[in-house]
Amino acid sequence: MKNIYEDLSREELQKEHEKLEKQYRDYQALGLKLDISRGKPSPEQLELSMPILDTLHSEVDYLSEDGFDTRNYGALTGIPEAKRLMADVMETRPENVIIFCDSSLNIMFDLVTKNMTHGVMGSKPWYQLPEVKFLCPVPGYDRHFAITEYFGIKMINIPMLEDGPDMDLVEKYVSEDPLVKGIWCVPKYSNPTGTVYSEETCFRFARLKPAAEDFRIYWDNAYNVHHLDISRPRVIPELIEECRIAGNPDMVYKFGSFSKISFPGSSIAALATSPGNIRDVVSQMQIQTIGHNKINQLRHARFFVDHIGVMNHMRRHAAILRPKFEAVQEVLNKELGGTGLARWTDPEGGYFVSFDTLPGCAKQVVKKMKEAGVVMTGAGATFPYGIDPEDSNIRIAPSFAELSEIRQALEIFGCVVKLVSVEKELEKTDRSK
Amino acid sequence: MKNIYEDLSREELQKEHEKLEKQYRDYQALGLKLDISRGKPSPEQLELSMPILDTLHSEVDYLSEDGFDTRNYGALTGIPEAKRLMADVMETRPENVIIFCDSSLNIMFDLVTKNMTHGVMGSKPWYQLPEVKFLCPVPGYDRHFAITEYFGIKMINIPMLEDGPDMDLVEKYVSEDPLVKGIWCVPKYSNPTGTVYSEETCFRFARLKPAAEDFRIYWDNAYNVHHLDISRPRVIPELIEECRIAGNPDMVYKFGSFSKISFPGSSIAALATSPGNIRDVVSQMQIQTIGHNKINQLRHARFFVDHIGVMNHMRRHAAILRPKFEAVQEVLNKELGGTGLARWTDPEGGYFVSFDTLPGCAKQVVKKMKEAGVVMTGAGATFPYGIDPEDSNIRIAPSFAELSEIRQALEIFGCVVKLVSVEKELEKTDRSK
Repeated sequence: MKNIYEDLSREELQKEHEKLEKQYRDYQALGLKLDISRGKPSPEQLELSMPILDTLHSEVDYLSEDGFDTRNYGALTGIPEAKRLMADVMETRPENVIIFCDSSLNIMFDLVTKNMTHGVMGSKPWYQLPEVKFLCPVPGYDRHFAITEYFGIKMINIPMLEDGPDMDLVEKYVSEDPLVKGIWCVPKYSNPTGTVYSEETCFRFARLKPAAEDFRIYWDNAYNVHHLDISRPRVIPELIEECRIAGNPDMVYKFGSFSKISFPGSSIAALATSPGNIRDVVSQMQIQTIGHNKINQLRHARFFVDHIGVMNHMRRHAAILRPKFEAVQEVLNKELGGTGLARWTDPEGGYFVSFDTLPGCAKQVVKKMKEAGVVMTGAGATFPYGIDPEDSNIRIAPSFAELSEIRQALEIFGCVVKLVSVEKELEKTDRSK
Repeated sequence: MKNIYEDLSREELQKEHEKLEKQYRDYQALGLKLDISRGKPSPEQLELSMPILDTLHSEVDYLSEDGFDTRNYGALTGIPEAKRLMADVMETRPENVIIFCDSSLNIMFDLVTKNMTHGVMGSKPWYQLPEVKFLCPVPGYDRHFAITEYFGIKMINIPMLEDGPDMDLVEKYVSEDPLVKGIWCVPKYSNPTGTVYSEETCFRFARLKPAAEDFRIYWDNAYNVHHLDISRPRVIPELIEECRIAGNPDMVYKFGSFSKISFPGSSIAALATSPGNIRDVVSQMQIQTIGHNKINQLRHARFFVDHIGVMNHMRRHAAILRPKFEAVQEVLNKELGGTGLARWTDPEGGYFVSFDTLPGCAKQVVKKMKEAGVVMTGAGATFPYGIDPEDSNIRIAPSFAELSEIRQALEIFGCVVKLVSVEKELEKTDRSK
């Protein structure tokens, strides 16, 4: 599709630029302070979870269902009811689950660390290898890429298609290169594209034939129950079971978290995986800690009970989030629909909208947004090493701000995208002179 | 001092053995199930902390004093009031403190891991070195030794003297061997000996001249406020400040925890160290997590406020623990006083009594205790690699059991120590025949 500026004359472009520049300066003059940079729940969403804190107080008992005093040391892998809750939400069995504290990011970090220093189920520690590589579907989650970058793991971009990562490429790398030890995946309502991996993509993952025995799929199902329309949830295959059936019983680590269900950083998180991987992880855990926060596990288990309790709760989250995501679509359509200057996703769940400018514009757009008082995720953040080869992807995170702020931020964004696009076209006419 | 058995004839020994063996079998017939193996607070102690859980509920605000919503992402290194509380208890300044979750053991593990994979403030990562060594005052804390063993770090025993580790040896190793990268210390009410490092010992620590730039003192002040008689607290020099004055500003990592103040594993823990080390640790933390459980930080800060709140609370802990420690002394004195068969410590704080049998008896004593239904910490656990060269040290942990159970367990212990000692003497007479 052609964009609206490319056939304009230099004079027409200059006129358009002048108009947009004035509009931009008017926005700047408002002295706004908006932030649509991170996937944080809003205060209104946090209020939904306040009753969780009332479930436990000094007048109730603190015994888990097997009679364990959650206030004391022990229960290394979690109390039974928390495992059952987490397994239910993660669509697996309690015996496949280890409960951690705080955040699934921390679990992923510790797991990559363990694999660096002690290998995977008896394999050679990665630091003893000449090189370790991870596949990174792009655009993706910046904090995943930060972990692998921290350990000097070479990251290889894999394009994200409509139905998940480019599986032809994934299969080729995984089956041919024994130094490829992992792939970062957010299989449902992916960060930032909102992609839901198709059944076929999931099955192809389960049937991978890795060259490396210690290759694992890092399956961060962070948004498994985070539907925007809970009456039409998306469901994907459960990968522990699919891997087992495909003869790859130990190939997947699944991550889950209540951070965006109850309280970010003050909830519970879990690893779900095969018995073999569980034993491997516990061998490190028992050195690292005596046990995590079981009081908080009990709090969550008593409040939510099971996936039904979680679904009822997520319906209320969705009711708050949906209007914000609808506003993003509405304003983007109004400002940029049919211009050919951009394309963006319209996700059915998760926390993000992924937006692509014309090539070479993203950094400049984010910079100008900041200068107008609107903080967005840094351009490039959605790619390994912060390098977006096209300089076009921008992540929009509309969850935290209020609805009116989102509208305003997106209106300014529309203006800025047009302004930067016009400037690009003007540069072209400069060069062609 | 001679022991009561060594001058007895074979017949006298056999008679004594018969008597003790009968007594032991009577104890076995009771079918007891007692556990004095781990330093766990008792349920009665946990009850003291229940009001902490009432400080936060759905009707109060969740803002930290700087206006941060503790229910959401962020505040990587902790909220201000939690840092201030922890700094107050750890006798340092809030800017030297990072708050973590759950347990200080986890902080130590993560720190050693970081130093393995990324070095210390820019030094070479330890896994790139031919060998790394840690000094281990013995007897010491088994979970410390487990961390260094897990990473293949060579552990060197340092005898614990009356006033702390043998500093002549420590100074020699630290100043001469650049592969010595650390020393594990529990400077007050040490685990298990109860030793309080003298001022001179602390000053000698601060004035060390390490051969390795990345040598650090791992100063686990786990029992800083855990006095058994709170009217006579022991006070030791504050090592961050002492190291700074001595020209070694970055040489100490201090660890603190509320695990034995509020709820083990469900409290808050902290690292206190120099600004240089703080920056170094944060460089890893910001990859590892978005922030720890700030709701629990707020809960603790609102309940305890400062060291005075903690002291008032620890007085109540002491009132529960003191009779148990007194009972240990009373029964040990009654059963074994003046026998020359053993010596043991009489600590002023902490969670343990350290007990030494005649050489070569500890394993057998712990085995026989288990066979009589009393679980004790494994013999050897207080030494690196689980090897007590003398096979004589046993750790007694009287905090968890009830007073009557402790008396009973220690009475059996007295019998078993005598029984095993007599058996040793009988072996000797066998050999001399």
